[in-house]
Amino acid sequence: MPVNLYAPDSESLLPVSGLRLGVTMAGIRKPNRRDLTVFLLDEGCSVGGVFTDNRCCAAPVTVCRERLEANTGDIRALMVNTGNANAGTGEAGMRDCLRTSGALAELLHITPEQVLPFSTGVIIEPLPADRIIAGLPDAVANATDSNWLHAAQGIMTTDTLPKAASTAATLDGARITVTGISKGSGMIHPNMATMLGFIATDACVAPELMPVLAKRLADASFNRITVDGDTSTNDSFIVIATNRAAHAPVEDLDSPAGQQLLAALTPVAQALAQAIVRDGEGATKFITITVAGGKTQGEAQKVAYAIAHSPLVKTAFYASDPNLGRILAAIGYAGIADLDQHGISMYLDDVHVISGGGRHPDYKEADGQRVMQQDEIAVRVDLARGDFEHTIWTCDLSHAYVSINADYRS
Amino acid sequence: MPVNLYAPDSESLLPVSGLRLGVTMAGIRKPNRRDLTVFLLDEGCSVGGVFTDNRCCAAPVTVCRERLEANTGDIRALMVNTGNANAGTGEAGMRDCLRTSGALAELLHITPEQVLPFSTGVIIEPLPADRIIAGLPDAVANATDSNWLHAAQGIMTTDTLPKAASTAATLDGARITVTGISKGSGMIHPNMATMLGFIATDACVAPELMPVLAKRLADASFNRITVDGDTSTNDSFIVIATNRAAHAPVEDLDSPAGQQLLAALTPVAQALAQAIVRDGEGATKFITITVAGGKTQGEAQKVAYAIAHSPLVKTAFYASDPNLGRILAAIGYAGIADLDQHGISMYLDDVHVISGGGRHPDYKEADGQRVMQQDEIAVRVDLARGDFEHTIWTCDLSHAYVSINADYRS
Repeated sequence: MPVNLYAPDSESLLPVSGLRLGVTMAGIRKPNRRDLTVFLLDEGCSVGGVFTDNRCCAAPVTVCRERLEANTGDIRALMVNTGNANAGTGEAGMRDCLRTSGALAELLHITPEQVLPFSTGVIIEPLPADRIIAGLPDAVANATDSNWLHAAQGIMTTDTLPKAASTAATLDGARITVTGISKGSGMIHPNMATMLGFIATDACVAPELMPVLAKRLADASFNRITVDGDTSTNDSFIVIATNRAAHAPVEDLDSPAGQQLLAALTPVAQALAQAIVRDGEGATKFITITVAGGKTQGEAQKVAYAIAHSPLVKTAFYASDPNLGRILAAIGYAGIADLDQHGISMYLDDVHVISGGGRHPDYKEADGQRVMQQDEIAVRVDLARGDFEHTIWTCDLSHAYVSINADYRS
Repeated sequence: MPVNLYAPDSESLLPVSGLRLGVTMAGIRKPNRRDLTVFLLDEGCSVGGVFTDNRCCAAPVTVCRERLEANTGDIRALMVNTGNANAGTGEAGMRDCLRTSGALAELLHITPEQVLPFSTGVIIEPLPADRIIAGLPDAVANATDSNWLHAAQGIMTTDTLPKAASTAATLDGARITVTGISKGSGMIHPNMATMLGFIATDACVAPELMPVLAKRLADASFNRITVDGDTSTNDSFIVIATNRAAHAPVEDLDSPAGQQLLAALTPVAQALAQAIVRDGEGATKFITITVAGGKTQGEAQKVAYAIAHSPLVKTAFYASDPNLGRILAAIGYAGIADLDQHGISMYLDDVHVISGGGRHPDYKEADGQRVMQQDEIAVRVDLARGDFEHTIWTCDLSHAYVSINADYRS
């Protein structure tokens, strides 16, 4: 049961001019399941991406990275298969990736370098390349600009719900639309999570700005979520600007137009990232962790992740048990060598639990209990060492997490 | 159900001359439970210890550390309570610690500085100091040198079985005995685990050597285990040499006598450490992870822990599911920036699963399946980057882990 997450309404997902999406059932791993999705881009789109830093990254990640390094202004297609990650597949995996993306290029009469391939699913199994190639014509044939919901379904793996978000905004006097989809619910950890995220806008953005834009958006969204601390081999986040809106291209994110662009895109990226946590494997609670008072951004982040990754903290949330010393223990082992525990404060929503490193004199367990029973909980820690603050989003660890991951392949 | 772990037989736990143990039911958290244990040392024992590096360490850890820094040759008593960790308790916790250990000093007519206090249990709750003080006379009164099994029971928290090991050996021509106990099954991670470990020998060891001896033993045992990656606030490992055996004191671990001492003590320390993993919360498998071919010891260790901490790897072990790509993914995100995935090999017991970063051509899933169904599994990774190797021990992640930690306080 996802936490306050609902299937998107197809009507609410605005078309992005210059982009069509096609989806088919290619029978990659299981029959009768949307498992192959293509994004068809008109000429002249700008594209940027951010990818996993897992050193055992999948073949398609290597291919995407290379192609985007060479070309952010002339990508014409994306293809996404589920059911198989094409990771841990060695040289054969690379050949399969080149062959499947080459087949799409041939269908579309473009060059292979204009295609970005994405895979998600089981690791170290050979990619069923022939089935993917056989499915491509149908995916291309049914591509439309109103196919976002099917595309959101087409990239799901253990997700229980499709994930999409959409908005309209004004940029430099012109109306722009922004629509995105994401997938992922396990092996979720930033840099990146086991996730795929795709956001498109018809706004105009200089191709050279795309890598920076993608990184800036990821750092505010997908790089702030964690379900289980596992960084996947395949994570990819792509931003597409189709350059169809009636304004001059944005060339600098710090310009007024750049700020308007970020203001339009960031909430969509955050909604897509948070949707992954809300649909986290077995999640029953959505938890926002803010660590303030860090001497550096890095140490605030380190403490936030130590709390978010602690299985003991996560099971306490699951049980609605205000066993809050577990949070204090996680702060203590987060790796700040000169941390003075006597400066630490901690709040659970409005309840002041810890002050001076010990139980706050007014803290009553009944108050902690009340907050722990909510399905949305904010933890706020103050380290009292400096002015840096970092916020991340995570979920609890339940019986269902174990069931899902013990049974995933069977 | 612990994995191939059995309750020790009291007869097999050899007395250590110069040391008596007393245990009582002080009603600290629950009635009718052995929850207070004292170690009474004759004059002239050598004592060394290693403690958690959690920055939110408990009051007794601070006290032990200070007392052992000042004195490794004149400690006369240890006291251990369960049911309350006296961590996250601020200044009141420190006062309670000094008061309870002071009460034992008074009973024994020694100075407070000759007492080492240990606490384990729930965090951020006030220590019930009066109940502990009230229980001390009975614990002291029933102290004998054959009380090891009761002491092993007296330090248990979520442990399902008492943990003890004992051996006899020859050192410099003299017979020595070594007996130890440990506790812990959750919040287990090295440096240190949520664990207490106490090993005593009647061997003769120079007091100055004790800190080094404790560190050397911990690095070969308790610092190689992980259940859930949580480093507790209270972990402590203590080595006591009562100096009663008929040989000259060991002054150098690299001397022949020092090597004999390590050879006698290390297996006991490893058995006690492995017992904690075998009794890991919800454990159904005992897993040995060896990473070879590291460029440094540190990187071999980092990869071993990335595998051991991955919830996805741990649930796959629980499910006996050879979803071994998850291990490859963990290797990839372990943090070796220049790791070349094409050099990686991986074996599951005798089965060669991965070579050259991809599936080994002869690997059959049925072979992986066979090994995954065992209750003792060895994972061997070769990074092919250098000559360093590191081995750690861990367990799987089961439904029962979640149940135990969701219900611990209730």
